[in-house]
Amino acid sequence: MSERYELLYWPSIQGRGEFVRLSLEEGGADYVDVARQSGGMKALRGMLESGDGGLMPYAPPILRHGDLVIAQTANILMYLGPRLSLVPDDEKSRLGAHQLELTITDLVKEAHDTHHPVGSSLYYEDQKPEAKRYTRQFVHHRLPKYLGYFERVLEQNRDSGGNHLVGSGPSYVDLSMFQVMVGLDYAFPKAMKKLASRTKRLRALAGRVAERPRIAAYLDSDRRLPFNEDGIFRRYAELDIEPAD
Amino acid sequence: MSERYELLYWPSIQGRGEFVRLSLEEGGADYVDVARQSGGMKALRGMLESGDGGLMPYAPPILRHGDLVIAQTANILMYLGPRLSLVPDDEKSRLGAHQLELTITDLVKEAHDTHHPVGSSLYYEDQKPEAKRYTRQFVHHRLPKYLGYFERVLEQNRDSGGNHLVGSGPSYVDLSMFQVMVGLDYAFPKAMKKLASRTKRLRALAGRVAERPRIAAYLDSDRRLPFNEDGIFRRYAELDIEPAD
Repeated sequence: MSERYELLYWPSIQGRGEFVRLSLEEGGADYVDVARQSGGMKALRGMLESGDGGLMPYAPPILRHGDLVIAQTANILMYLGPRLSLVPDDEKSRLGAHQLELTITDLVKEAHDTHHPVGSSLYYEDQKPEAKRYTRQFVHHRLPKYLGYFERVLEQNRDSGGNHLVGSGPSYVDLSMFQVMVGLDYAFPKAMKKLASRTKRLRALAGRVAERPRIAAYLDSDRRLPFNEDGIFRRYAELDIEPAD
Repeated sequence: MSERYELLYWPSIQGRGEFVRLSLEEGGADYVDVARQSGGMKALRGMLESGDGGLMPYAPPILRHGDLVIAQTANILMYLGPRLSLVPDDEKSRLGAHQLELTITDLVKEAHDTHHPVGSSLYYEDQKPEAKRYTRQFVHHRLPKYLGYFERVLEQNRDSGGNHLVGSGPSYVDLSMFQVMVGLDYAFPKAMKKLASRTKRLRALAGRVAERPRIAAYLDSDRRLPFNEDGIFRRYAELDIEPAD
């Protein structure tokens, strides 16, 4: 298919849509970010109610391509990967890439829950004590465990000299990991600084992704929304705590 | 490949491994539940540390098949689906099946978090007030929203007369939905009773899955572990609350 890709996602946050945006940008795809166009929010809401030609999605991001309507971030990236040359060709690598992306999805959910541990139907302001407690266990236990895991995956991927998470070249998983690292740096600068010596390969990976010409151009454009306190990664002084030594 | 499937998962709970077990059983697969064999826990722990022939997994369940090592429940089911004839052949249906399975994954995570809203590194007993608050929003908002969504997916899937979530016949998504329904019935009997009139198609689906000969035989065997208070779906009297009218 050579139809234009249409991304349907909330227009004012990076959120989960950003993982899709990064792949579309790096892949040089012809795409439109529908809800950021005039009338686009109406299209997004309509899609959530109807399914419009495919399975009705539960939530954005949603990718429309030809007559396909695909939801769930990792599912979208699995679809885009081969089409944008952002994943190796063999089944083993593709299953591995998707496995890593789903583990990134789990980490992103927990990062989100630091400010919404009780539920998304309540404001952060209505769950601050719980957020503080959740964040303590996240920063002390979960964050080092997840980042330690991805650091080891890089180390063990000898095909790439430790430079890529899957295969011997850049993939959508590297792009997603970049987004996680910059998001965590935004939300938890103290913890990320303290973890720097244990995340050297991840830091180097994020730095290399940021310097890829298409990503650098994108990050520099107004298509890249800034982080803010409506997204997944939020900076709240009271949650910016240090992990234990 | 005709090699035997090896499932690596905790031997004393249904947990996320149960979604894989149900597909292996319905598909009539030749498989071994490694950790339930003598010495199996050692194999499971070894796998978590080494990756043994594939990408090191972050967590179980893990499926080993030939030289493939696959982790993340939905990823495993996506791999098994075509091999066990538990998903339609076309790309659109397969993407749709995986999308639904990932939404089931999200619901399962939230059901788990009702008893562990602060974190898995703490006991339930150490997060009871937070669990009560999380469960209130889960039962009042999230549970009706998720089940209403899946009920509508059934209704809109006219290929199957509203009898299956994907395509015109049973798939791994139907099996997973069965597991979610019986798990929720175990954990939240009051809420599920109250939601019965709004989940008629889902209830009928779960009933039909339970009566499929291979599933019925499995449920009746000692391979099916009972629900307990170490798994995802737990029955705690204080969390068994009713949703709002």
